Amino acid sequence: MLPSLLPARRSLLRFARCAGQSQARCQSTTAAQPKVVFSGIQPTGIPHLGNYLGALQQWVKLQDSIGPNDTVIYSIVDLHAITMPKDAAQLRTWRTQMLASLLAVGLDPAKSTIFYQSDVPAHTELMWMLSCHASMGYLSRMTQWKSKLDVSDSSTIDSEKVRSKLKLGLFSYPVLQAADILVHRATHVPVGDDQRQHLEFARELAIGFNANVLRAPVLVEPTTLLSPARRVMSLEKPAQKMSKSQGSELSRIYITDSEDEIRLKIRKARTDGIEGVSYDTEARPGVSNLIEMMCHLGGAENVDAIVGECKDLSMQAFKAKVADTVVEHLEPIRSSYLDYLDRPGALRDIAEQGAEKARKRAGDTMKDVKEAIGF
Amino acid sequence: MLPSLLPARRSLLRFARCAGQSQARCQSTTAAQPKVVFSGIQPTGIPHLGNYLGALQQWVKLQDSIGPNDTVIYSIVDLHAITMPKDAAQLRTWRTQMLASLLAVGLDPAKSTIFYQSDVPAHTELMWMLSCHASMGYLSRMTQWKSKLDVSDSSTIDSEKVRSKLKLGLFSYPVLQAADILVHRATHVPVGDDQRQHLEFARELAIGFNANVLRAPVLVEPTTLLSPARRVMSLEKPAQKMSKSQGSELSRIYITDSEDEIRLKIRKARTDGIEGVSYDTEARPGVSNLIEMMCHLGGAENVDAIVGECKDLSMQAFKAKVADTVVEHLEPIRSSYLDYLDRPGALRDIAEQGAEKARKRAGDTMKDVKEAIGF
Repeated sequence: MLPSLLPARRSLLRFARCAGQSQARCQSTTAAQPKVVFSGIQPTGIPHLGNYLGALQQWVKLQDSIGPNDTVIYSIVDLHAITMPKDAAQLRTWRTQMLASLLAVGLDPAKSTIFYQSDVPAHTELMWMLSCHASMGYLSRMTQWKSKLDVSDSSTIDSEKVRSKLKLGLFSYPVLQAADILVHRATHVPVGDDQRQHLEFARELAIGFNANVLRAPVLVEPTTLLSPARRVMSLEKPAQKMSKSQGSELSRIYITDSEDEIRLKIRKARTDGIEGVSYDTEARPGVSNLIEMMCHLGGAENVDAIVGECKDLSMQAFKAKVADTVVEHLEPIRSSYLDYLDRPGALRDIAEQGAEKARKRAGDTMKDVKEAIGF
Repeated sequence: MLPSLLPARRSLLRFARCAGQSQARCQSTTAAQPKVVFSGIQPTGIPHLGNYLGALQQWVKLQDSIGPNDTVIYSIVDLHAITMPKDAAQLRTWRTQMLASLLAVGLDPAKSTIFYQSDVPAHTELMWMLSCHASMGYLSRMTQWKSKLDVSDSSTIDSEKVRSKLKLGLFSYPVLQAADILVHRATHVPVGDDQRQHLEFARELAIGFNANVLRAPVLVEPTTLLSPARRVMSLEKPAQKMSKSQGSELSRIYITDSEDEIRLKIRKARTDGIEGVSYDTEARPGVSNLIEMMCHLGGAENVDAIVGECKDLSMQAFKAKVADTVVEHLEPIRSSYLDYLDRPGALRDIAEQGAEKARKRAGDTMKDVKEAIGF
């Protein structure tokens, strides 16, 4: 449908396991159409290392590696945050913390369009238009709403339990997510493996819409920008992912933690009684998690380099070394974050300028979409 | 919840059967909160007499009877038009025809806010926010999507036939309809009996939203402005409502029909072999339909006045008299309509000015809504 995008598809960004900066590029192919990278993150407050290594660090690398004609757009998707009940004051705080965090990790408003989703009404406008093509059958088979409601995957909309709990927002959010991507005509969307189903849905909606309006493609089919999963595990229960919703504060390191907090959490991190330092995610999940953390944050070539260096250390000495690396990496982020929090006016200005750019871009798409529909 | 609205509720507009202009008022109660009347109509092209007598004539009367602090808002709800597939060129034409028709029947942009729904993104923005409170169970029990899909009322979303046909847009449009009303903080909504379920839903969403945000009511609970059904029947099959989707062109009179067209259609109208003119909707549906038409369009006190005047006429003479009344009433509407169609620039300006006013008003609501949510 958009053959000029094919070269770009072949040059998909792939992060080598524990890759240094050099590999984290969205390679530019000379003749290719300008790339538009889009991704979103929910306003969940201050990101922890799982969020940072799993997504934000890649976002920064993408921003810093794109060509001069490419565009990078990152949205704090606050409209998605309300599919589950949220306290207003809490949400307000979390939004601000997330924006300050994005800036603190290195996203630069001069290079990336950074905005709150709720500041750009075109997202919900396009959602409605896509809704008129989105199959209820397809949506009802999607699994995300089931896991969020804590009902079994075989549950249907007509089951009594689901009926009493499910709201339209939670059920239909994949269509809003598709609109988020399509309204900016994103060509490349960095997603985790769990989001592939949603990106495929966005592609189908774009294809369906274009076919339906019977003219030159109005919406662009996005391509997945896959990165190998970088899973950061809980410090308390290293069999589980690091998460805000599970475990105590000791189970996760926030990117703005102080040196004392970081050292305490790593010292208390669950490891094992085996002597020395070795990498084995099955037999030694806690130690392996610390090795990976050190690798990703310290810019080591790979985990073997870390193991080679640390294999004979006591657990206490190894943990101190991990903590050194984490502290060193996060210190400038923490400092920048605190600086932004001290300047709420600057944050508001950045958000407004980002929204302005995003509204302009989304507005151009909506003009074509409305024209194609007959408005 | 809004006790100051109670006096207004007691002064609900009620149209007497075949009432003259004088009764068609949204009575102003001195101490009452300013009234905000909102209604919408789909862009289905040129209205027929069923649309005109069933809704538009009342809209004009409402506009002309409100108090100086009241607001009247009418929207051409084009976003609703796309819940069923539409050809773009057709839709574009129908939108323009509907706008010109609204102006031709007497809606005045200086008195009423008249706008295309798709020009005001706040409608879909609020829809999303309401979606997060709208129960899937409730929506799935609504009957409108079932009748539009031509499936039985007992069908569920999980039935195979429904799954293969139903789109999210058609399923969720009552939430958009609620947003249409609530985003303008309408206090009074003129609706037909078939829309009462939807207005009740809008009220429940407003109550639910207000309760959820735990502060002074952000959304206003709308009140139904009931008017006795004025059903105009098909000229061909007087047991059916006059409709664009059923019957030939001879079955309906458009408000812009020429004198020749009107006289032909009324001459060919199906009546019966009974002598004289009498009103009996069961035994003489065709004749009764013509009597009502003449009553409503000619400003007669009631149907008895018409029967008294015409009871001894031959059917041919009676039909000629009906046609005289219809022609006389519609002639200035037709003339004004054609004049507007000749001035597409003026129509665009009117639409844009209406959209501007509607965006301003809806924007004020959204500011409060977003603040209450925590955006």
